[in-house]
Amino acid sequence: MRRIIVVALGGNAIKQADERGTAEEQFKNVETTCAQLVSMLRFGHRLVITHGNGPQAGNLLLQQEGALGEVPAQPLDIVGAMTQGQIGYMFQQTMQNMLWKEKLPLPVVSIVNQVLVSEDDPDYRDPTKPVGPFYTEDQAAKLRRERPDYVIKEVKPKSVAKRFRRVVASPDPIRNIEYVAIRRMVDAGIVVIASGGGGVPVVYDTNDNLRGTAAVIDKDKAGERLAEVVGADIFLVLTDVDAARIHFGTPQEKPVRTVTVSEMKRLCEEGHFKAGSMGPKVLAAIRFVEWGGDCAIITSLDKAVEALVGRAGTRIIPDPVKE
Amino acid sequence: MRRIIVVALGGNAIKQADERGTAEEQFKNVETTCAQLVSMLRFGHRLVITHGNGPQAGNLLLQQEGALGEVPAQPLDIVGAMTQGQIGYMFQQTMQNMLWKEKLPLPVVSIVNQVLVSEDDPDYRDPTKPVGPFYTEDQAAKLRRERPDYVIKEVKPKSVAKRFRRVVASPDPIRNIEYVAIRRMVDAGIVVIASGGGGVPVVYDTNDNLRGTAAVIDKDKAGERLAEVVGADIFLVLTDVDAARIHFGTPQEKPVRTVTVSEMKRLCEEGHFKAGSMGPKVLAAIRFVEWGGDCAIITSLDKAVEALVGRAGTRIIPDPVKE
Repeated sequence: MRRIIVVALGGNAIKQADERGTAEEQFKNVETTCAQLVSMLRFGHRLVITHGNGPQAGNLLLQQEGALGEVPAQPLDIVGAMTQGQIGYMFQQTMQNMLWKEKLPLPVVSIVNQVLVSEDDPDYRDPTKPVGPFYTEDQAAKLRRERPDYVIKEVKPKSVAKRFRRVVASPDPIRNIEYVAIRRMVDAGIVVIASGGGGVPVVYDTNDNLRGTAAVIDKDKAGERLAEVVGADIFLVLTDVDAARIHFGTPQEKPVRTVTVSEMKRLCEEGHFKAGSMGPKVLAAIRFVEWGGDCAIITSLDKAVEALVGRAGTRIIPDPVKE
Repeated sequence: MRRIIVVALGGNAIKQADERGTAEEQFKNVETTCAQLVSMLRFGHRLVITHGNGPQAGNLLLQQEGALGEVPAQPLDIVGAMTQGQIGYMFQQTMQNMLWKEKLPLPVVSIVNQVLVSEDDPDYRDPTKPVGPFYTEDQAAKLRRERPDYVIKEVKPKSVAKRFRRVVASPDPIRNIEYVAIRRMVDAGIVVIASGGGGVPVVYDTNDNLRGTAAVIDKDKAGERLAEVVGADIFLVLTDVDAARIHFGTPQEKPVRTVTVSEMKRLCEEGHFKAGSMGPKVLAAIRFVEWGGDCAIITSLDKAVEALVGRAGTRIIPDPVKE
């Protein structure tokens, strides 16, 4: 049975934690990732792919800082769009090469993709998502004067000199702006890479115009919105562990296998999943099934194909229909 | 009559020569440009838009240089893809805002787009296209040792300290790699922004894999290839002058109006159009009409709409069909 699958790739799909982020390293990781994606395409599934951009945006922000005297830095929304181009290109080219070798020449295209948020989102009142370089106390004070729009926070202990960092909001994604185009592209048989880095965050200003906002959207939550608009059957969240786990780090630790959305919500409420890591993935998975998806899966890259046929990963399915 | 038009935008569509390239400046220029593009969409034409990336790639290369100790620089193909994201985003968002105000909600999407070239192209033997920062003699010598793959040339007179620069090939574009996807997107009624900066230059390596190559493709020549694959009726090259001119800079100077492709080729052979500026535009326009296009137009942004109805610009049309 051929399905529409939205795949949300974890950070390790592009850059390993111990790597610097050269093009060679990243292309190599992307190749490993694409081998799995191509397996899914071989089964005839339609794929829409999304990915994070944390390390790439971080590097670009450092580079912008390094040339501030010569070249104006671009704001965070443009930095996001730039990393969509960068990462999209690596996936697109690698997928095309593999599909060609498989004699499965599906068109693959990455798009620039905006995601609507609201500046009324509570996260704007106390932003917590750190972006860009670390600063000393003096640098932080200077930056606060020069950029009154920045929120600078102390993110490391007093003993560390460079302990300040810019923080931005991580608002909830409301809607994928290019949803009509993406839907038409999927209908036309194109493998689409979209919503990269959680999408370029935009808001409607007072003139009803879209404009960028200084924020970073969680890529799994944005991926779920993408899954809704393409009418996906399956939302597949790939990360560095093969399943979500309850009682994590205790002797009772065990993986969650196939559960209904109500069961998963109960596990959530019991506090099994950490806010910074598994939490948003579980939340996005629950949202997808509540929206009407067939199945949301959380697993690792190498278990992805097995998980699709029910033999690995955490799988969240709808509640049984009762009268 | 509704046509498919490929519009190649000049550098001034995004950044004026005297500007530094802040996001605000660029968004303002993009707005002026989009107002013209929206006029064309109002007539019901289908648009595919392409643009240059010289100043944006230049700025990004300077930023990469500024943080070399901390962050690995990305190669030229990735830099190209990043600027496609950056510029595509600005056009996409601005067009969407204007179309929405016009109650003409066409989907607009920018894509990452590769263009095939060959490393057998004669331009690889003696590259001349300067990219990135200027270097002193010492810096140039160091760079030559560290990067044996770079070609460094003296591009300014001896009196200038920073007179060396990396040069790369500017090969002829052979084929737009994502042509199937672009064609399907145009058929689906999407306004596509593609082939930005002349496209990300790629070659087939010995394993028949696409990979990036250190080159810069002329955006008008690449735009012409794009016009071919979408089956465009009109190829519209927008620049900073309202028409191509013969006897340029002499008392006999006059604009070229509507000419057949044979007449234009004759003017070309007579040497009226400079290699670095009008030459490639005229060449691309001639190619398009010889391929089978209805009309290629060279004009300025503010004359674009008039030129489409034959009242401005240089218009190149096919030769009359004779028996």
